[in-house]
Amino acid sequence: MSNAFEEFRARRESGNTRVLDTESLAIKRFFALDKQVYADGALSTREKELLGLVARLVLRCNDCVDYHLERCVEEGVKRAELDEAMSVAMMVGGSIVIPHARHAAKSIEYLLRDA
Amino acid sequence: MSNAFEEFRARRESGNTRVLDTESLAIKRFFALDKQVYADGALSTREKELLGLVARLVLRCNDCVDYHLERCVEEGVKRAELDEAMSVAMMVGGSIVIPHARHAAKSIEYLLRDA
Amino acid sequence: MSNAFEEFRARRESGNTRVLDTESLAIKRFFALDKQVYADGALSTREKELLGLVARLVLRCNDCVDYHLERCVEEGVKRAELDEAMSVAMMVGGSIVIPHARHAAKSIEYLLRDA
Amino acid sequence: MSNAFEEFRARRESGNTRVLDTESLAIKRFFALDKQVYADGALSTREKELLGLVARLVLRCNDCVDYHLERCVEEGVKRAELDEAMSVAMMVGGSIVIPHARHAAKSIEYLLRDA
Amino acid sequence: MSNAFEEFRARRESGNTRVLDTESLAIKRFFALDKQVYADGALSTREKELLGLVARLVLRCNDCVDYHLERCVEEGVKRAELDEAMSVAMMVGGSIVIPHARHAAKSIEYLLRDA
Amino acid sequence: MSNAFEEFRARRESGNTRVLDTESLAIKRFFALDKQVYADGALSTREKELLGLVARLVLRCNDCVDYHLERCVEEGVKRAELDEAMSVAMMVGGSIVIPHARHAAKSIEYLLRDA
Repeated sequence: MSNAFEEFRARRESGNTRVLDTESLAIKRFFALDKQVYADGALSTREKELLGLVARLVLRCNDCVDYHLERCVEEGVKRAELDEAMSVAMMVGGSIVIPHARHAAKSIEYLLRDA
Repeated sequence: MSNAFEEFRARRESGNTRVLDTESLAIKRFFALDKQVYADGALSTREKELLGLVARLVLRCNDCVDYHLERCVEEGVKRAELDEAMSVAMMVGGSIVIPHARHAAKSIEYLLRDA
Repeated sequence: MSNAFEEFRARRESGNTRVLDTESLAIKRFFALDKQVYADGALSTREKELLGLVARLVLRCNDCVDYHLERCVEEGVKRAELDEAMSVAMMVGGSIVIPHARHAAKSIEYLLRDA
Repeated sequence: MSNAFEEFRARRESGNTRVLDTESLAIKRFFALDKQVYADGALSTREKELLGLVARLVLRCNDCVDYHLERCVEEGVKRAELDEAMSVAMMVGGSIVIPHARHAAKSIEYLLRDA
Repeated sequence: MSNAFEEFRARRESGNTRVLDTESLAIKRFFALDKQVYADGALSTREKELLGLVARLVLRCNDCVDYHLERCVEEGVKRAELDEAMSVAMMVGGSIVIPHARHAAKSIEYLLRDA
Repeated sequence: MSNAFEEFRARRESGNTRVLDTESLAIKRFFALDKQVYADGALSTREKELLGLVARLVLRCNDCVDYHLERCVEEGVKRAELDEAMSVAMMVGGSIVIPHARHAAKSIEYLLRDA
């Protein structure tokens, strides 16, 4: 069991509720657009989630990485594919990405524990 | 009660003490200059703290965000103003800023709990 | 005369035309939202343009800096205010921001040439 | 004709020659590894080049964007797919990515001029 | 005693094991190259570890900072030298580096506790 | 001859003059401190300039890289040492650093043309 991943899920949910409890229409629209971007289109949702994952890895945000890892797994992306996506992120982003790859590897283990 | 915010305060204070316990004059001067920059001038301290907040959000540093949120609240910045500053930061910095907006929303709730 | 600034204006306009000549609804909506964020609200457009300027400076993008400098000047921001905004950006973002401050100073000179 | 793209090609080639004219084995190995990462594997070269493109867009490097755009086009990626990849990069990386999207749109126009 | 530093060591070791438990040859080679880069050469290992430390500080990654602090101390770098390296990182990277300097100061205290 | 390097020198000088033509005491102090940081101390100026160079490379700013390359050469740093510093920057910062390594290699060629 990875308490870290469940803590992320809880933190994300309660945090989003707080952020969206706002008068700012721009924030609400930003969140709405953030969902639409990953919809099936010329590229599939699966492909876009992989793009999102690599973008988050090179920008080095663990919570964002966890979110896209979960979405990738839901879209059927396999462990070997996730590892190769990570290898691209490491190459582009450098060894500074490694701590996030360590975090990701732990999350992947949790997400695929019954696979 | 937000233990997270009080933990930040304690971590910041003990950390600054350690950093400033140094022979390096450059570090001491850097810290001194970091205070002077936010002084009232052509722009008010309140305006500069808002600038500092948005700069920290797009550079994605929770401890820095917490510090400027506290200073903004001390300068009388309102919740709706903080939210709009966050909307600018999200737009400029992208969805990678969202986890920091979630963190900020929790800190704002704590800082304004008696408001 | 700053040819550099006029070149930026031309590059921005022709580039935006190309980017928006797309089937991607997400891109069109992203551009639309990017305008709405700076509308008068709890914070004024003037204040938000200053926030945008500092965000662009610490993220170190000359074209973005030029755009917000122009908008700030349109909103009546004065030279001394722009300089103080730059001092906040330098302090937060470090000496790596200086080349962009040099670029900005040249653009400000051009934008305020008749002031 | 886009002289800008041809200038990038020439700058890249002469620059790589200079960088690789070195005693540093680490630099040579880094360049070699940078090629291997995009080889067909669990993910296809086409998929990895798209990942590389988005990583470069959010890290905001025009020369890198141009390189991966060229590789994507060689791998048969279509304009609509490139646009959707850009929409993901914008959403994750924010409006600070827009100047690089403008640059990319110009390069795409050149690369697909006979398509 | 700094539990934080020991927790980093454990997290790093278990994380690296997970990351390297992969079919991706690129990831394994990336890790191997990451060691070779710091070998004695035209610059000494000690000098390269200091370079690595400052690079990690300006890129703002605490786990990476901890790793290079430990390596620097193993190479005989003194407290006053570490402080001056930090002053360069602060100056280049700005006040956004300060929270990482606070983290580093705590790790240094732990690493040099018997010195 | 590298006109690019001489153009950088001219751009830097005229730009600094403009930036320092300001009422902002904070900007003047920031520039003054930026010089003091590299003074001989526990670490030598030569060592600090190398630290500055690598920090600029991983933060990816060509003008800053050029400045520190010039200073390193003035301090007697050799080509092989510069190359190893670049290898550390590439490893930490990833392939996104390569275009800046290409730029640096050209500047080094110019700076060492009579060596």
